[in-house]
Amino acid sequence: MIQHPSFRTDPWALHETELDLEVLAQSESLFALSNGHIGLRGNLDEGEPHGLPGSYLNGLYELRPVPYAEAEYGSPESSQTLLNVTNGKPMRLLVDDEAFDVRYGELLAHERVLDLRAGTLTRKAEWRSPARRTVRVTSVRLVSFTHRAIAGIVYEVEPLDGPADVVVQSELVANEHLPSRTGDPRVASAVEPALESEEYFARDAKAVLVHRTKASGLFVAAAMEHVASGTPRMRTSTEATPDLARFVVTDHLEPGQRLRLLKLVAYGWSSERSVPALRDQVAAALEAARVAGWEGLLAEQRRYLDDFWSRADVELGGDPELQQAVRFALFHVLQAGARAERRAISAKGLTGTGYDGHTFWDTETFILPVLTYTVPAAAADALSWRHSTLPAAMNRARELGLEGAAFPWRTIHGEECSGYWPAGTAAFHVNADVANAVTRFVDATGDEGFERKVGVDILVQTARLWRSLGHHDPQGRFRIDGVTGPDEYSAIADNNAYTNLMARRNLVAAASACERHPDRARELAVTPEEMAGWRAAADRMFIPFDRRLGVHQQAEGFTDHELWDFAATRADQYPLLLHFPYFDLYRKQVIKQPDLVLAMQLCPDAFTAEQKARNFEYYERITVRDSSLSACTQAVLAAEVGHLRLALDYTAEAALMDLKDLEHNARDGLHIASLAGTWIALVNGFGGMRDDGGTLSFAPRLPEGIVSLSFSILRRGLCLRVSVTERTATYRLTQGAGELHLLHHGEPLTISGSEPVEREIPPSPPRAPAEQPPGRAPRRRSPGSE
Amino acid sequence: MIQHPSFRTDPWALHETELDLEVLAQSESLFALSNGHIGLRGNLDEGEPHGLPGSYLNGLYELRPVPYAEAEYGSPESSQTLLNVTNGKPMRLLVDDEAFDVRYGELLAHERVLDLRAGTLTRKAEWRSPARRTVRVTSVRLVSFTHRAIAGIVYEVEPLDGPADVVVQSELVANEHLPSRTGDPRVASAVEPALESEEYFARDAKAVLVHRTKASGLFVAAAMEHVASGTPRMRTSTEATPDLARFVVTDHLEPGQRLRLLKLVAYGWSSERSVPALRDQVAAALEAARVAGWEGLLAEQRRYLDDFWSRADVELGGDPELQQAVRFALFHVLQAGARAERRAISAKGLTGTGYDGHTFWDTETFILPVLTYTVPAAAADALSWRHSTLPAAMNRARELGLEGAAFPWRTIHGEECSGYWPAGTAAFHVNADVANAVTRFVDATGDEGFERKVGVDILVQTARLWRSLGHHDPQGRFRIDGVTGPDEYSAIADNNAYTNLMARRNLVAAASACERHPDRARELAVTPEEMAGWRAAADRMFIPFDRRLGVHQQAEGFTDHELWDFAATRADQYPLLLHFPYFDLYRKQVIKQPDLVLAMQLCPDAFTAEQKARNFEYYERITVRDSSLSACTQAVLAAEVGHLRLALDYTAEAALMDLKDLEHNARDGLHIASLAGTWIALVNGFGGMRDDGGTLSFAPRLPEGIVSLSFSILRRGLCLRVSVTERTATYRLTQGAGELHLLHHGEPLTISGSEPVEREIPPSPPRAPAEQPPGRAPRRRSPGSE
Repeated sequence: MIQHPSFRTDPWALHETELDLEVLAQSESLFALSNGHIGLRGNLDEGEPHGLPGSYLNGLYELRPVPYAEAEYGSPESSQTLLNVTNGKPMRLLVDDEAFDVRYGELLAHERVLDLRAGTLTRKAEWRSPARRTVRVTSVRLVSFTHRAIAGIVYEVEPLDGPADVVVQSELVANEHLPSRTGDPRVASAVEPALESEEYFARDAKAVLVHRTKASGLFVAAAMEHVASGTPRMRTSTEATPDLARFVVTDHLEPGQRLRLLKLVAYGWSSERSVPALRDQVAAALEAARVAGWEGLLAEQRRYLDDFWSRADVELGGDPELQQAVRFALFHVLQAGARAERRAISAKGLTGTGYDGHTFWDTETFILPVLTYTVPAAAADALSWRHSTLPAAMNRARELGLEGAAFPWRTIHGEECSGYWPAGTAAFHVNADVANAVTRFVDATGDEGFERKVGVDILVQTARLWRSLGHHDPQGRFRIDGVTGPDEYSAIADNNAYTNLMARRNLVAAASACERHPDRARELAVTPEEMAGWRAAADRMFIPFDRRLGVHQQAEGFTDHELWDFAATRADQYPLLLHFPYFDLYRKQVIKQPDLVLAMQLCPDAFTAEQKARNFEYYERITVRDSSLSACTQAVLAAEVGHLRLALDYTAEAALMDLKDLEHNARDGLHIASLAGTWIALVNGFGGMRDDGGTLSFAPRLPEGIVSLSFSILRRGLCLRVSVTERTATYRLTQGAGELHLLHHGEPLTISGSEPVEREIPPSPPRAPAEQPPGRAPRRRSPGSE
Repeated sequence: MIQHPSFRTDPWALHETELDLEVLAQSESLFALSNGHIGLRGNLDEGEPHGLPGSYLNGLYELRPVPYAEAEYGSPESSQTLLNVTNGKPMRLLVDDEAFDVRYGELLAHERVLDLRAGTLTRKAEWRSPARRTVRVTSVRLVSFTHRAIAGIVYEVEPLDGPADVVVQSELVANEHLPSRTGDPRVASAVEPALESEEYFARDAKAVLVHRTKASGLFVAAAMEHVASGTPRMRTSTEATPDLARFVVTDHLEPGQRLRLLKLVAYGWSSERSVPALRDQVAAALEAARVAGWEGLLAEQRRYLDDFWSRADVELGGDPELQQAVRFALFHVLQAGARAERRAISAKGLTGTGYDGHTFWDTETFILPVLTYTVPAAAADALSWRHSTLPAAMNRARELGLEGAAFPWRTIHGEECSGYWPAGTAAFHVNADVANAVTRFVDATGDEGFERKVGVDILVQTARLWRSLGHHDPQGRFRIDGVTGPDEYSAIADNNAYTNLMARRNLVAAASACERHPDRARELAVTPEEMAGWRAAADRMFIPFDRRLGVHQQAEGFTDHELWDFAATRADQYPLLLHFPYFDLYRKQVIKQPDLVLAMQLCPDAFTAEQKARNFEYYERITVRDSSLSACTQAVLAAEVGHLRLALDYTAEAALMDLKDLEHNARDGLHIASLAGTWIALVNGFGGMRDDGGTLSFAPRLPEGIVSLSFSILRRGLCLRVSVTERTATYRLTQGAGELHLLHHGEPLTISGSEPVEREIPPSPPRAPAEQPPGRAPRRRSPGSE
């Protein structure tokens, strides 16, 4: 499944049967454990070899200065970057004085299993040391969904072919040396050792290290506690230095005897709390976990996941590999968001430092739709985080000479961290994306309290932004000039269709929310005049259309531009951004990722069916998919306009992005939005779900090779299960009491009780195959293909 | 005249009568001496206090890495920066063991005179030391126009009120400490001590220091030789260390006795010659200068300038301050270009390190027109320098995926040094500007040899660039998308009118040159098909026009953009680029410097008279003149369309840019292009000279307050003197034999022999005053105003 053949297809697990050091970094991302607060990459217990050691705490960042070739007003002087914090994973093993290291001696057996229902990473290894002593090492690792501050490891070792003296060193390591990075703009920038010791302490089987980040001035504490069991000859000791705490167990084992070490690790960080407070906080978390016990932690973990899968599972008949991939995807989306709790959900989750750990528009556009319909509390938390950054966004708007709030293109803490404004600050659509996530959440949950408390503020301040960013021209059209849409191979264009359509929705949503919450509107000094101004701008929003070609323009004038010379572009020149200057990409018709096509997904009512088909085919010919955010959107629209086989190809690409490392950068962390896109491709694509404007609709249709598809969505306290086969779709409520109105291929249905409603699926319109740029067609999906 | 009142108006000199340390750096720029090869800022002889110490050699640069917030394909990794080389100016004086420093003791008298006919900087000071001994110090400094490698100083000291022990230390100082710089993008970046000693040597009254630049690996040698004359008690010594050579003279002087020291300094640098060769080269230059002697150097300097002024002088009746300013301007333009000899003429000449010493499109567009008509050999040298950089420009084009040559936006040595591509690489018009300078030079001089050797290559490679940069759209129009025109408050726009018009001229000129030189065309593999392609692109070049407003668009869609909110912009928010993000400037109608208006000057036949008037008034309302390249162009078009008073205001602004430090950055060096713009404003503006397409025409007309204007231009070996009064214009040949055809307000005239031809000036069309953005009108010029 991964690019080496050591994974096997398993519906509920990711299963590695051979260790290939060439793809070690990639596997560390795939096997990462996280609860949205703590993230631990799947590094080997013994620390080395590693691809990229990684232990992360959501929101904990270091600052680094941003250099410019030429000074620019309004560009950020510093950026935030996700920090590798104190590593609580290491369990170093010595067997008869020889260090367990898979690069030496002989690895006789290896297995790693990420169990998607247990929420654990299990590893089994049999190793023969250079001195020919064979041991079996077993570890089980979890990052607890129920104890937010806690990770745990059970580590066991037993000799297989003779007695052995074993030493296990369980460590906390701060300021680990990290491998140096490349010039690829998509990876993180290096930060020098960033943690300064504030306090360290060890006693009995416990230790704690407290540090402070040098530039950002944040405090972070990591504590560990152990329970060791071995033979009567077992001895333990513990010590701490500023950057290293160590609990050491020694024992003499005969074959059949086993040394077992339970390690509980607690993390905490704060910008404001004192060192003693933080130290006590992690001690308390450890104590609670100790009381729960290892078996208790495992049981809680499984209960949490059982509950999740009961609402979120997607079942797919006919393609076991995609079945596995969609569950793997959902698991990592859950891990990224479950306990983020008013911190950002970043593009890579907490699986690596790619993109500096920043969050982008992807979160609201790709990740939150999934969470909104499966773990709405996590979606609410993520939006509440955005809400908490409104002061920074309002400052940024003022700095740019604009009204309202301008959310950052990329950030950890809320301040703009993009140093390349044509593809950062100018990409104002992020504001409409945030607003749209609010609207979607409120529509889906009916949560008026959330709308009052969080929604109105965001909608009003983003509407104000749009009103000040655009203007009515002498013909009365409302224009938004000089901005950048989702497609990063265009920039600084007038009247980007996606931006204008999403801004229109944002303006209308703000006015509606103010109508529903007049008191909140008054608090924000929204007047009827201001609301009328929003509606007038929405009514007259300029959406560029090329009459000659009969297609919408991605931005005004776009279709007049020269077509990219695809025939002259070699396969090794993709992704184009690494081989051609932005200057050339921006001025030609070549698309990195859907822009107008995404607008057709998110604003379906702005296009006729015929326009959608023509637009899709036009833009399909110039879209190169150099972004991981591309395939899922293309899947959705391909399915809608009737290119079902193509939709399946794109779905598979989204689903296998990281498992097959299609972009060759899974080493830096998983593409959480693309993983979420797997769900989007299936639910919005083959399920045909649309939820704009308060109406829930489905237009399911399966491609050849997929014999059945079932998924659930939560809506206003109800859980709707949709089961699709080639000919029929069945709608049924599985949780909650009430009734749900929806459209099935345009036909209104009411679903209530637990009574399934079944409808036929109308045949798909015939379509000639759509064309892609030469060499850029997605891989053809044959069912069960490897 | 300068912002402090210590300058007096003098028709042939810049005369400072008081030393104001607040404006010391600015005065160092104004009093800079240069021959285009060596540049010495007007630093005080004793070295301190200083604003910015500066000794420069044209083309000698250091490399520095260019940082980016986010890596970009195709952006330069390093930049060249003008280096402060070994300082040969210092003459430190001790009077009875007290150092002469104007900040201590009492400066009883001070005078500095830059003599525009002698080509010398003279300084006189009377100083009472803290110990109350009064001395008179006199120095005369020159940088020789006739001995390219030589600068000379005569330094004299005499006590006035009693005997004094005096010591004069004449020095060569390498790696001077420079004051740290600001974040203003227009100033140079700091470079650490960049010179490494290769050799040093002192004997008798001579010394030499040879260094190597650390990163760029260039060798530079500075040598000095002295002739001292004093009393019989005078003693001398000399010494050298790696970064310092010193010739010391001691004497005991009674009032009436004088110590006189002649210092000759020779400079040389090379990327390829050996240290011994370079050392010998400066020794030979010193020897030649010693043979010429000080009086000989002075006489040659004056002869050189007499010759220059006989061709170049502009006489202006009615405004003594402007009379002085235009001569000051011409003197500095000459200094920048006279002996540059196949090195670039940079934006600041050799008067400071502003803009890192880079050359931009200004050279070809503003400086070369003046040199072409007054010192054509210097213009030929500057274009030959461009020609010598064709290999780098062709590499750059290939790197950008284009054909032909892409000249750099900013450079010293030929490689692109701009790290901000939207206002660098994207400003492709620089290529048409270079090509236009070639066409202009060949038209003016009729120099076919130059066209064959230099011109054809440049025209062909730039035409190839345009053909590959643009494309024919389905309507057949030739479009050039996504480029940046001269106005730096817009960027990355489609079909910039200036660019497209200049590209059109470039394409046609290339085809014509190939017709005239078929053998050269063959060498360059130009086929008739290729020439036909150039002509077809030129014929169908798209020039955007707004029918609703009846004006041309600076770029396609420009007039649809929101108008800048001038009313809300405070006076202290100019220049806008330091107070608003590019994002906002680019997408609104606000102009830093003429773009379409410059197109109307350089491509006058592309516009009707009525279009010119309408366009001028439209763009005048949105042009804020945040660039020193603004006023002169506005002067030219204001004069043409009939706003004569406004034209005078703009002329004065261009003329006084540095003398009054209107942009508050004369400290970093003079604005050579704006100085050249003074000539352009007078000759192309009030003289109404146009020279496009081989036809020389004049449409002279004087504004109120200017009673007469005379100027000369060289054309095809003839020198034409044009003398204008309120009612008449007189044309006369003052050098050369032959006849000259020209148009006077559209009437064909032939001028031959020395016979003056006089014609009446038709009255100007009446015009209502043009409007500028609030607060941005130029200062109203009243004759003789200070």
